Parts: sequence; structure tokens; C-alpha cells
Amino acid sequence: MTSATARKSKGGDADELERMIHAWTQAVQARDADAAVADYADDVRNFDLAPPLQHGGRKTIRDNLQGWFATFSGPVGSELRDLKIETGGDVAFAHGFNRIHGKRTDGSETSVWIRLTLCFRKIGGAWKVTHEHTSVPFYMDGSLKAAVDLTP
Amino acid sequence: MTSATARKSKGGDADELERMIHAWTQAVQARDADAAVADYADDVRNFDLAPPLQHGGRKTIRDNLQGWFATFSGPVGSELRDLKIETGGDVAFAHGFNRIHGKRTDGSETSVWIRLTLCFRKIGGAWKVTHEHTSVPFYMDGSLKAAVDLTP
Repeated sequence: MTSATARKSKGGDADELERMIHAWTQAVQARDADAAVADYADDVRNFDLAPPLQHGGRKTIRDNLQGWFATFSGPVGSELRDLKIETGGDVAFAHGFNRIHGKRTDGSETSVWIRLTLCFRKIGGAWKVTHEHTSVPFYMDGSLKAAVDLTP
Repeated sequence: MTSATARKSKGGDADELERMIHAWTQAVQARDADAAVADYADDVRNFDLAPPLQHGGRKTIRDNLQGWFATFSGPVGSELRDLKIETGGDVAFAHGFNRIHGKRTDGSETSVWIRLTLCFRKIGGAWKVTHEHTSVPFYMDGSLKAAVDLTP
């Protein structure tokens, strides 16, 4: 629970989704790929920071996460900001910023704010992530460089 | 209506949202900024291709679109693929790919597949876009270049 979280949908579902999202950041911090995808639908569709355009399925996302965690020499920092959650019936979505930070195995330091959109459906009585979209914008100045130096 | 569109939520709402999304692509093709934001909530939050991390409000998005349209010398091509729509109660979301293409005023040709996530809430009986997230991934090879050369 963080004061940085606003909700348009009050009540049990928004609380539950907020807990899920914070549990996900804790799983990332602990570099626990299985826990990080525990609430993902089997056929989740992920638009990720890295190519290709989409990554499909919980197993693929789990394996990608495990490979990514291995590029950090310590914990993977994950700091949420300006998270908004909207729920209605069996569908919900959340969007906000996430600062990923930590020391990499090559000795460099990573600290980047990314945009995060999570879309949920209640399946068999439990909320599952069916779509995830993470990104940074890119500079339109001809360099086409990813804008990894922005702050919210 | 296109055969490239799959739906997990059958019925009137998904049909209505599909019509809205196709109307939006037609507004883009016609470079009509007012029509392109007709179904956006006043306080829509946009994670766009270009910095900053977020753009807020329908008026800002309209003005950004108008500036962007002015960089094309002719129509702005918009081709949707693999669009999935999920609805439930008063909340819905859609995700897929969109190929933006056309001739720019500097003589260059643009053709890029982007990822598109649209999140909706029914406000006063009408579906409105309350969140939009468009992006391309970027190469993790040290170049940090936006991946504008991918196909779905």
C-alpha cells in the first residue's frame, strides 16, 4: 500500500489488485521468477521492453524474467509511482511508473523509469494478468534512442 | 470489422469498441485530430511513442496529434493487426499492433509496427478511452535503439 496510488474504483477488487501488484514488485526484488508470474494467465500477452513485439505465455515470460534477473549481481529494485487502478465487473487495468534499479553483473548500474500497464480478468474467481505492456518512449531527433533517462 | 480481430468478450460492448477503434484509425488516416480524440476522456493518460513518460489530457493529445500529422505530406496509414478486446461491466481494454506508414514532409517514408494498448471506462453511458499506451521495444545490445524495424 502506498500513498502514491490513486484509485478510481474503490473497494475490494482495487485493494486486491494493489496487493497483487506490490507482491509482484517484491517477487522481482527477490529475483523469484515463479512468484513474479504467479498471477499471470497461461496465455498472457506481454509487450515487453525488449524485442520481439510480443512475448506470449506465462512460461515464456517466466523464463525471460529468470534470464533478466541473472544479469543483476544483487537485488532488482522496483519502485512504483503514480499507479492508477480501475476495476469494473470481471475486468480491470492499472497503469503507472516503475523504477527498475540495481547493479548488473558487468559492473554497471541500472536506474530507469519505465511505463507499466497491466490488464486483468477474473478467471475462476481469481484476478489474472492477461496483458502486460512495459516501455520507455524514444527520442524523435533522428537518434531513435530509447529514452531511459526520464523521470515522472 | 476485420478478420484479424479476436475477442474474448462477445456481444454489444466488444462490437462497439471495435467500431470505435476503427473509427480512430480512420480519423488518423484523415489527419483529423478532433475526430481522433472524440472518444477520449478529458483526463486520459497517454504513454506515447515520444517523450515525456506521460502526456495528460485530451486537449494535449489532440494538439500533439495535430503537430504529428503536420509531419506527413499525405495520408497517415494505420493498419491494425491481432487486435484483442476484453470487456466486463464498465471497464474494457484492447491490445494489438498498428502499422503507421506514410510519406513525411522531409521526403522520407515511415513504416513502423507499434504496440497499442487502449483502456476504456463507460462514463455516462458512453465508452471513453481513459488510458492509452503505444510503444516499440528497444535493442538491449548497448545501442539502446528503438526497434522500429520489427513485424508482428
